[in-house]
Amino acid sequence: MKTGNAGRQMRMGVFVQAAGHHVAGWRHPDAMPGGANLGLMQHLAATAERGKFDLFFLADNFTTGYGEHPSTIGRFEPLTLLSALSATTRHLGLAATASTTYAEPYHIARAFSSLDHLSDGRAAWNVVTTSYAKNGAIFGRQHPSHAERYAIAEEFVEACRQLWDSWDDDAFVMDKEAGTFVRPGTLHPAAFHGKYFDIAGGLNLPRCPQGQPVIIQAGSSGPGQALAARTADVVFTAQNHLGDAQEFHRSLKGQLAQHGRGPEDLHIMPGFMPVIGRTVAEAKELFAELSSKLDMRQANTVLSDRLGTDMSGYDLDGPVPELPESDQLKSRALLLLETARREGLTLRELCHRAAASRGHMLVVGTAGQVADTMEQWFVEGGADGFNLMPPFFPTQFDAFVDQVVPILQERGLFRREYEGTTLRENLGLARPASRHAAPMGRAAE
Amino acid sequence: MKTGNAGRQMRMGVFVQAAGHHVAGWRHPDAMPGGANLGLMQHLAATAERGKFDLFFLADNFTTGYGEHPSTIGRFEPLTLLSALSATTRHLGLAATASTTYAEPYHIARAFSSLDHLSDGRAAWNVVTTSYAKNGAIFGRQHPSHAERYAIAEEFVEACRQLWDSWDDDAFVMDKEAGTFVRPGTLHPAAFHGKYFDIAGGLNLPRCPQGQPVIIQAGSSGPGQALAARTADVVFTAQNHLGDAQEFHRSLKGQLAQHGRGPEDLHIMPGFMPVIGRTVAEAKELFAELSSKLDMRQANTVLSDRLGTDMSGYDLDGPVPELPESDQLKSRALLLLETARREGLTLRELCHRAAASRGHMLVVGTAGQVADTMEQWFVEGGADGFNLMPPFFPTQFDAFVDQVVPILQERGLFRREYEGTTLRENLGLARPASRHAAPMGRAAE
Repeated sequence: MKTGNAGRQMRMGVFVQAAGHHVAGWRHPDAMPGGANLGLMQHLAATAERGKFDLFFLADNFTTGYGEHPSTIGRFEPLTLLSALSATTRHLGLAATASTTYAEPYHIARAFSSLDHLSDGRAAWNVVTTSYAKNGAIFGRQHPSHAERYAIAEEFVEACRQLWDSWDDDAFVMDKEAGTFVRPGTLHPAAFHGKYFDIAGGLNLPRCPQGQPVIIQAGSSGPGQALAARTADVVFTAQNHLGDAQEFHRSLKGQLAQHGRGPEDLHIMPGFMPVIGRTVAEAKELFAELSSKLDMRQANTVLSDRLGTDMSGYDLDGPVPELPESDQLKSRALLLLETARREGLTLRELCHRAAASRGHMLVVGTAGQVADTMEQWFVEGGADGFNLMPPFFPTQFDAFVDQVVPILQERGLFRREYEGTTLRENLGLARPASRHAAPMGRAAE
Repeated sequence: MKTGNAGRQMRMGVFVQAAGHHVAGWRHPDAMPGGANLGLMQHLAATAERGKFDLFFLADNFTTGYGEHPSTIGRFEPLTLLSALSATTRHLGLAATASTTYAEPYHIARAFSSLDHLSDGRAAWNVVTTSYAKNGAIFGRQHPSHAERYAIAEEFVEACRQLWDSWDDDAFVMDKEAGTFVRPGTLHPAAFHGKYFDIAGGLNLPRCPQGQPVIIQAGSSGPGQALAARTADVVFTAQNHLGDAQEFHRSLKGQLAQHGRGPEDLHIMPGFMPVIGRTVAEAKELFAELSSKLDMRQANTVLSDRLGTDMSGYDLDGPVPELPESDQLKSRALLLLETARREGLTLRELCHRAAASRGHMLVVGTAGQVADTMEQWFVEGGADGFNLMPPFFPTQFDAFVDQVVPILQERGLFRREYEGTTLRENLGLARPASRHAAPMGRAAE
């Protein structure tokens, strides 16, 4: 058996959306597209655990528009779904996306702490800002600018971190004889006073098993990277070119030292769509079948959403037009446009690309080819692991777990058994001490 | 077998808080006080289902103060806990309290719809306003007055009802051949424009199995009754005197007709604490044991919280003082004060009463005596059912299920098997049609 990369292990998540990640994935005969289908979700979680995955990852948004990626509608609210799955899994990390743009830190901090308790230390929060401007109308508010959303997010995460340290780890002694339910002096209410949030109070549940839930950050923009370098345990990023991925990896890891963190304190996990066949021809046929089921109007909408600009007026068979720099032109949008320029794609081809993997790495091939690409990215500094985005569920996920995972294990790149009990332990991340824990004894209140 | 009350069946909930409902309940040797103990919660849910209960009911608040009822701290967030319990139960209704005072209708509507999907139609929402003024500081806001909180709650519930009707029941067809994920014309975004909320948008998940989750209302004040008469399926109320309970029952049921509702469309379920022994002496001994473990300072704090007035300065062995009328003097506080006047209680005795059942009906006796009282209240127009509040968990809840439930079943007052699959079916409540469903065919958008 090859030992691979000196014992360094890939981190692995599965990004679950029942309709699949390819926009036409749900139309494949083997796809089970039902978003609010608990049986399917339990099956996928069991498959992920059988495959020794670190994370079961759920996106989120507040969108209903028909014409957009169908998987964005008709699905469970992430925190409630993961709470239900905590009862049918034992090792799998449970990662929910929750936006900081239209929420209260107290509610978010409490829900993730509760999920961490329910799962015995397996909760993760994917911190995002809400990018769709029209979502402001759901909350009767003006949608904040990109810069302001990140400023809000920074305060939001810091407020949650204070709230998670509301109680010392040993606060709830419940001593029946003495009549002491909580040890005096162990409550440290948050006292956060920022530009966007004023919070004075503590959470009403014990400090969670992981101390603080694992923090995932998905933004790849400048402010996104800065926030991640300070606060993230895991970064989920869209990369479709090894050179770009290496550059992103170097840039983000290079910002850790200034926050007193080492490169091993943050795992970078790009999204990754493998379209798997038993032969190369079968994989290509599958991809062609999905492409043939694509509704071009819908694909154009997906691309327009990604770019933050309506692309429906342009010639599909002409070159991808130059777009003005704008606040809405996010880092992922720029990656898509760079890909188009690099490869000389027409607008139609870029629509197909966006509809397939939405700017994420795409490999169409056999299990061995998929494993080769993953190994190359992992060994050559493009990734610490991957967030798997099957084109549809469940069979393409089964194919990965049954065919690709054994190859990665054989090469010594991926675990055969879970190392610990909490998600932090499996990810090799330290349990954060409370900010109120004194090095010697208990801190004074 | 006696047929009881012409086939009319009691509704039954269990109000679960792990530390028990008696303030000193957690100190009993048999008590399992751990609030964030999932194994205990799963055991209690299984016990409730074994006892054919309608509802597993969770309170909520944002309080951390030591000295208050210990059960108010150190517990799971309700919606995440019930989501986890949806996976280990099949028939039990899952009722979470969620406040309308510091939340967004969209988030609450979505979470309850998701819980209803996860549980195949067993979700219930106990609609409350946040009464503790100091909780405003957690959200950086001025705490609204009692009247304003109810005005907010009215808008909040109506906005949620619109959101729950975002999609027609048959919207998500997911027709792979035609490429139709949702049927066109089936989306009806909420358009709510009130004094407190402006909401334009729809939920991103299908209409839930129950159409709308069951609505529980806990307020017994004038505005609370008015809100309940319009919107509630179940009312949870604090009553400790049959005459008062009958008066409340008549008053609330009398308000239903003006909203086009019948008396059977709303179930009134008072809280009910049975302290159960195999003999009368054993029950009294148990109650005395709990009383002896009471911390008077804590009991005084519970009473002060109930009354909205600091009672620590008064003579414990003097009469209960007259309190000025105030916004904070809620309906439950008035019931406590009336009880004190009626029975000539000292302040110490009222503290004990408040600490035992917090203004709810209290019966100390054998299973037969408990069943007798329940039957009387049920048959004589004081209650449609009960929300059980055991003094501590799990053994006092076991005693009820093992000893009292069989008596009620034998008397024909309580089901031996669940009647339906959804909570509405078990409660005998109709599934609400969508406001957008036309009597003949589909309404135009």
